[in-house]
Amino acid sequence: MEKRLIVQKFGGSSVANVERIQKVADRVVNYRKRGNNLVVVVSALGDTTDELIELADKINTEPSEREMDMLLSTGEQISVALLAMAIHKLGFEAISFTGPQVGIITDSRHTRARIVKINGEKIKEALKKGKIVIVAGFQGMTPEQDITTLGRGGSDLTAVALAKELKADECEIYTDVEGIYTTDPRIEPKAKKIESITYDEMLEMASLGAQVMQARSIEVAKKFNVPIHVRSSFSLKPGTMIIKEVNKMEEVVVSAVTLNRNEAKITICNVPDKPGVAAKIFKTLADEGLNVDMIVQNVSHLRQTDISFTVSKAEAARAIKITRKIALSLGIEEVLEDEDIARVSIVGVGMKSHSGVAAGMFDTLAKNKINIEMISTSDISISCIIKNKFAETAVKSLHEKFGLGK
Amino acid sequence: MEKRLIVQKFGGSSVANVERIQKVADRVVNYRKRGNNLVVVVSALGDTTDELIELADKINTEPSEREMDMLLSTGEQISVALLAMAIHKLGFEAISFTGPQVGIITDSRHTRARIVKINGEKIKEALKKGKIVIVAGFQGMTPEQDITTLGRGGSDLTAVALAKELKADECEIYTDVEGIYTTDPRIEPKAKKIESITYDEMLEMASLGAQVMQARSIEVAKKFNVPIHVRSSFSLKPGTMIIKEVNKMEEVVVSAVTLNRNEAKITICNVPDKPGVAAKIFKTLADEGLNVDMIVQNVSHLRQTDISFTVSKAEAARAIKITRKIALSLGIEEVLEDEDIARVSIVGVGMKSHSGVAAGMFDTLAKNKINIEMISTSDISISCIIKNKFAETAVKSLHEKFGLGK
Repeated sequence: MEKRLIVQKFGGSSVANVERIQKVADRVVNYRKRGNNLVVVVSALGDTTDELIELADKINTEPSEREMDMLLSTGEQISVALLAMAIHKLGFEAISFTGPQVGIITDSRHTRARIVKINGEKIKEALKKGKIVIVAGFQGMTPEQDITTLGRGGSDLTAVALAKELKADECEIYTDVEGIYTTDPRIEPKAKKIESITYDEMLEMASLGAQVMQARSIEVAKKFNVPIHVRSSFSLKPGTMIIKEVNKMEEVVVSAVTLNRNEAKITICNVPDKPGVAAKIFKTLADEGLNVDMIVQNVSHLRQTDISFTVSKAEAARAIKITRKIALSLGIEEVLEDEDIARVSIVGVGMKSHSGVAAGMFDTLAKNKINIEMISTSDISISCIIKNKFAETAVKSLHEKFGLGK
Repeated sequence: MEKRLIVQKFGGSSVANVERIQKVADRVVNYRKRGNNLVVVVSALGDTTDELIELADKINTEPSEREMDMLLSTGEQISVALLAMAIHKLGFEAISFTGPQVGIITDSRHTRARIVKINGEKIKEALKKGKIVIVAGFQGMTPEQDITTLGRGGSDLTAVALAKELKADECEIYTDVEGIYTTDPRIEPKAKKIESITYDEMLEMASLGAQVMQARSIEVAKKFNVPIHVRSSFSLKPGTMIIKEVNKMEEVVVSAVTLNRNEAKITICNVPDKPGVAAKIFKTLADEGLNVDMIVQNVSHLRQTDISFTVSKAEAARAIKITRKIALSLGIEEVLEDEDIARVSIVGVGMKSHSGVAAGMFDTLAKNKINIEMISTSDISISCIIKNKFAETAVKSLHEKFGLGK
């Protein structure tokens, strides 16, 4: 029988110190003992990356991105060497590689490079020799051999891309939580771990503020149909499978409730209702590099309308400044800003084929006397902007309403 | 006029912290302003290498040498990125490379690899674009792209080898002393910095215990006639040139007095004076991996002789054990050991053509009532083993005798 090939990815908190590195080695070796072939992707030790960024900042507050990549890629290189040593200590064969060494070729957008291709030969050779292969996450190189890093969530991306390239049977993403939950357990203790979830739902959740995995890795997994298993590095319990389609006896309409408190709402009042105005507003914001999230415009009265949109709180100050400028150029004086908001969303592929889900959401919020300020929907999610003080009540009541705690 | 190309190497103490990295950047930029092309080789920051070794030791006390190289090579990679950032901050163009990136190809003797060849194209291209090129010292890669390190003094070797490959006009080795001295200034405050010294003298001094540069870098410099300038990174004063031949108006007979207190003396008494005995002794020691330094055997009396040799103090215990075993197998009972010794040496190409130098040395020691226990000579040096307590008197009186303080 062909051996199973598993790609395992361990994040920085899983390898934060010597003891944890040894625990990871134990786990990897246990998988090996059960006859699996293993490719292990590792992030930098704990806070290494932040420490290196701080060091660079003392020297140059605007460091060259190429040199930043040169600097930061050392973090994962340290991790892979130490993990290999820890596995050797347990009497098993292991070999570590940097991203460039295993032929992870990227474009040259330093600090946020995209993987162009992977030459998996080196890994395949080492696997054939019976070795556990350990690969530095988060990094690659350009065709000109400049070292690059993949940006936020880069190690997940390395794992997913390697799983695709090597046709792995599974890609395990180890983290400090036990999987994906029906909502944030810190808000709703009744939150349940989800057994399996679709790529689309996971993508929606990532964009709505769930922070377990970055959207880009899920996108790649979806594109190449790589099954992902998100699980805890501190426990042996199974976590959450992220897959193409979830077959369940009893159909689940809503899979999860998400909450995002990092947005601010900006409203331009009394916008003239004529073609090209919205375009002008959002083109200007885009040109300034501002990411606009939710946008809502309603029907007009007296040839005027209000346009509201949300931006991340970090960019709110800049966004409001630019928006006022645009408004003035349109002869508009009233621009409102509200940072005291929260976005609560329900996510689920089931809602596509179920009517009344939106109504159920609005009804639940109304019963709890929560006013809805903005509404936005997608194929598999519905989001409401509400006052921040109602956020927890909203999450709990929606979690209850859609039967997620059962 | 063709620009001069200078290779500069900065050791770990020169880049121990942010302030020192900035100082190095200042110095490099000043050279650049004067119109030079520059290739800068850098070691790991201060104690980084020791810290990484300690970390590895916590995980595996017998780490794989391949993984050790993977781990340690990150130290220099951090340094080069930070130095590039510091130079950018000053408004100059710089680009950093790892050893593998600039094609420093080595054999696969991990942790002590030898450079096989260098492909200088990448550096030449960057120089042509007007950039200051910064290269991680101490590292290279095998033809199979495994990362290797070059062992002790490895960054010096990188600098010298690059200077050769790029046909540099000069190779500057920056250190925390101002150059090569006529003797250790901590022992003899009258010690003078030597303006220029030959490769052979420097090699002799390195083997006799002077620690400024490792012998292997000087050997490579000699082989390819690369002029080396050893100087301080904390001062602008010129240091010591290490070159092929020193032309001086007034010939200097002795260039320096060296002292080595890290050796122990072992004597096998009453060795049968017949062919093959010395061979047996030293072959056995070599087979055990012991490095024997000075060996002295005198004429025999009654078909018996004494054989004395020195080993490093660190290996003395093991050496004496093995020597006693060999002695017993030859039917010899008396083996003496003395760790309380020092080797004082005089070095100088001038002594080749001058008679009476040895006599002058012995006479000076005798006048100071210092007994000589062993004598060994080479073409350009004479060493005496004396009791350790006389070491300082010996150094000072010889320094005076050969006019080195003038």
